[in-house]
Amino acid sequence: MEPLILDGKRVATEVKESLRLRVSALKEEGIVPCLATVLVGDDSSSETYVKMKGNACRKIGMESRRIHLPKETTTSELLSVINELNSDDDVHGILLQHPVPKQIDERAAFEAISIEKDVDGVTSLGFGRTSFGFGEYPSCTPAAIMNIIDFYDVSVEGKHAVVIGRSPILGKPVSMMLLNRNATVTTCHSYTENLAEIVSQADIVVAAVGKPNFIKGEWVKEGAVILDAGYNKGNIGDVDYDSCYEKAGAITPVPGGVGPVTISMLLKQTVDSAEKSAKLLRKSS
Amino acid sequence: MEPLILDGKRVATEVKESLRLRVSALKEEGIVPCLATVLVGDDSSSETYVKMKGNACRKIGMESRRIHLPKETTTSELLSVINELNSDDDVHGILLQHPVPKQIDERAAFEAISIEKDVDGVTSLGFGRTSFGFGEYPSCTPAAIMNIIDFYDVSVEGKHAVVIGRSPILGKPVSMMLLNRNATVTTCHSYTENLAEIVSQADIVVAAVGKPNFIKGEWVKEGAVILDAGYNKGNIGDVDYDSCYEKAGAITPVPGGVGPVTISMLLKQTVDSAEKSAKLLRKSS
Repeated sequence: MEPLILDGKRVATEVKESLRLRVSALKEEGIVPCLATVLVGDDSSSETYVKMKGNACRKIGMESRRIHLPKETTTSELLSVINELNSDDDVHGILLQHPVPKQIDERAAFEAISIEKDVDGVTSLGFGRTSFGFGEYPSCTPAAIMNIIDFYDVSVEGKHAVVIGRSPILGKPVSMMLLNRNATVTTCHSYTENLAEIVSQADIVVAAVGKPNFIKGEWVKEGAVILDAGYNKGNIGDVDYDSCYEKAGAITPVPGGVGPVTISMLLKQTVDSAEKSAKLLRKSS
Repeated sequence: MEPLILDGKRVATEVKESLRLRVSALKEEGIVPCLATVLVGDDSSSETYVKMKGNACRKIGMESRRIHLPKETTTSELLSVINELNSDDDVHGILLQHPVPKQIDERAAFEAISIEKDVDGVTSLGFGRTSFGFGEYPSCTPAAIMNIIDFYDVSVEGKHAVVIGRSPILGKPVSMMLLNRNATVTTCHSYTENLAEIVSQADIVVAAVGKPNFIKGEWVKEGAVILDAGYNKGNIGDVDYDSCYEKAGAITPVPGGVGPVTISMLLKQTVDSAEKSAKLLRKSS
């Protein structure tokens, strides 16, 4: 049987339609949801990502403020830019484009983003809150994965989810989010022995490892749900799509899977934040 | 072959010996490390735990300040007590005894503890930092488990660790700490299907489920390392000791396993915090 294709574009379209309405309503109150993107240096793919995010904002009527800092920026210079954005009432979300040049303490910069504006879900506080089940802005790729799961009504409770990858913005938070939805969760990584054997037990596979075509169909259990959060050069996922397609019960394509939903989660969380500001303003007026 | 007994008392004794020296050194500088314990209501086992912690402080020369609030205390009353302790320079660590009476928002109370004094590792920020590998005061029971692992030189890297339990102070943080030490980690809980089968694959089993004698020897792989963080009435662990003893390569007894080390971690983290205060004082003088 052919697997269900988990169409991220479709999910993203639906999310963005509802966001357009919410943005219009906010504008009527005089509030324009605004995402500030901070790019340090001149890495061309980072520039492309930042542009894509800016365009996505514009398309649903949001504003985006683009801050481009020179590649020699120091940690303390970056921190003061972030602090300014933290205290700017017109900015509802802050995205610091990863990676930053080597001389910068990236973790310190992420941590400086105030929890109210951490719409990209990069702070340790945001991660902790998400892990404990009361986080407002989880990291966007894990949020996208959960969104796809919900859109297609994938059953999670009691299932065995195997996450390959353990980064602070992907493997770790998606493990915690699946755990909070009552999956049994195994988190794997470069030190994992017998990876194929572990993957073969998974009802749900989340690939977040950053190696093109890494997850092979022969590893996968018949009928498993495969979510590919990999993002490698040439628009290639972590999942060997053709061989996994043969085995999967459901699978995300790359491109057109997790990626588009990730951007729409970033927009959604910025709109959430703007709505919270609006509520506070109404209260105080 | 008989398993290695992971003797928590021995680990705790060694930790406390080194703490005594550090406490003496601090006292010579005029600083007495002080743990504030906050107990709300009159649950008798909670009273016992708080007393035990106070005694443990005294035995190594530390101070403990016991705050006992009536069972009708409100969330906001408790928050103001915690805030006072946060700003009291003589207090280096704050422990809020769990559970608090039902009318109190326990999570809000935990979150109110400042990160500098969260020596019991209960805040979501502390959890996030620990998960990202730069936490200073992890939750004490997971810290105790890692301490026992290190004391007995248990190999973790590349091993498959199965954690049974997912509480914010035990299952979740110990999963993250084992993951940060390069174990492959599976986190199980009440919704897990085929628990016995999953446990049978574990090189390291952490029992943190709160059900007496729950983990059976027949589930366990020959030679596995079994760490029992369970704490049930009558001093009974989560691990069915006799049957697991037959299979294990190493095992913690209950009592005398994880428990004593947990208290010594609480002391250690309070002394760490006092030393940090001393350093700041020296800088500013």
